[in-house]
Amino acid sequence: MNILLVNDDGIAAPGIAALYSALCDFAAVHVIAPDGERSAVSHGITLDKPISVRKYLRDGLFEGIAVSGSPADCVKLALNELLDRRPDLVLSGINLGCNSGLNVIYSGTVGGAAEAVFNGIPGIAISLTTYQDPNWEPAQAFARKLVQRIAERGIPAGVLLNVNVPNVRESAEIAGIRITEQGMAQWQEAFYKRTDPKGRTYYWMSGSKKETPGNETIDDTAIKNNYISVTPLQFNLTAYAEMKKIQMLELEY
Amino acid sequence: MNILLVNDDGIAAPGIAALYSALCDFAAVHVIAPDGERSAVSHGITLDKPISVRKYLRDGLFEGIAVSGSPADCVKLALNELLDRRPDLVLSGINLGCNSGLNVIYSGTVGGAAEAVFNGIPGIAISLTTYQDPNWEPAQAFARKLVQRIAERGIPAGVLLNVNVPNVRESAEIAGIRITEQGMAQWQEAFYKRTDPKGRTYYWMSGSKKETPGNETIDDTAIKNNYISVTPLQFNLTAYAEMKKIQMLELEY
Repeated sequence: MNILLVNDDGIAAPGIAALYSALCDFAAVHVIAPDGERSAVSHGITLDKPISVRKYLRDGLFEGIAVSGSPADCVKLALNELLDRRPDLVLSGINLGCNSGLNVIYSGTVGGAAEAVFNGIPGIAISLTTYQDPNWEPAQAFARKLVQRIAERGIPAGVLLNVNVPNVRESAEIAGIRITEQGMAQWQEAFYKRTDPKGRTYYWMSGSKKETPGNETIDDTAIKNNYISVTPLQFNLTAYAEMKKIQMLELEY
Repeated sequence: MNILLVNDDGIAAPGIAALYSALCDFAAVHVIAPDGERSAVSHGITLDKPISVRKYLRDGLFEGIAVSGSPADCVKLALNELLDRRPDLVLSGINLGCNSGLNVIYSGTVGGAAEAVFNGIPGIAISLTTYQDPNWEPAQAFARKLVQRIAERGIPAGVLLNVNVPNVRESAEIAGIRITEQGMAQWQEAFYKRTDPKGRTYYWMSGSKKETPGNETIDDTAIKNNYISVTPLQFNLTAYAEMKKIQMLELEY
């Protein structure tokens, strides 16, 4: 099996090394990832300037390629230029921080995996629901089993699996797996408004996740209950359910 | 009526001035847009550095605010910090270049309008299907009528209207309006591989749109037939139709 790893935390991040370690004994694993952090770049791609690439050696663990662009750039470049063989699977992560609810829209981790899906290759985004003190082990164990299951049975074309793994102290605390819906849980932005050394105002975005009540089928609810959340995503955004209402506006030119 | 304009071509681009001119005689129009081009940044937002803002005077036409971030940043900042009143409507554009098919996923124009929708405000992305010799007039005329219609009747919550206007020489060439689906027409990437002045390899992304056969209900088909395409979009990406197949994988931890 031929696997491509990408992420949005950058090729030097611990999560991509954890993912590599989990998979390298039963697959040929290639690492092509951004040369630094690209969090929250969504599906952004680089059109207005060149993209540079360089070899990146990770502590004797892997030799990968560091790319000056976004996660989506990495996958496009990998498929078009850098890989000799088309991968069977693309995994993006392991991301530090949850990619559930409306975060899915902004996520560079999801953006990388989506690029695989657009090219007919199964894509998996995998995130750990913490920014500190990560316990990679449950995500590693699940990634191994998931990849093996997909190798046996495949997944439907056009579908991305968005995986969020709760950060637990002991692996046994994981309650199980839930196939979930993307919730619409949002962040409430807060901007720090400050003055730079030259006296000009600047803003720095921060925020906290709004608690949105959701039933058991929602990604954030599953995660809160210590389930690994697996959400199948697709990228035809058409609001079919509202089509008739828009037709009834009788728009004119 | 209180309208916010944003775009991804930058506050100095001709399209946002064309949109301002079309709407300013019957609405209070505020312009808060990126300080330069931000094409293909999708829903990307700026978390890892501060965002600066400055006043921008456009040839006596408007005084806007230029923002160092993405279209989505502009709308977040506008709603949280920069506007005194919540806008009734956010329009993003007029973009130079079509935002149909899979382009919708990468589009900063759509990203800006989506941010409004996430905040409960109707959002419209409007694009002209050319990069050169734009005839803004049909897009301007349609934007006026669309805004007035929405003022009268509203649009469903959570729905973005993604408008693509064919670039015609004479306004009378517009065949009418079609409420369409997002097609899955893709770009075939091509990378220029070259060497920089220091002898290092770089890549520059280019490409051309793959012709995908689609029926009359698809955005790209409507545009090709000189219809203004209006696609209602939503942002719950859950692949409901494939949920059962994913459950049948019987994923284990």
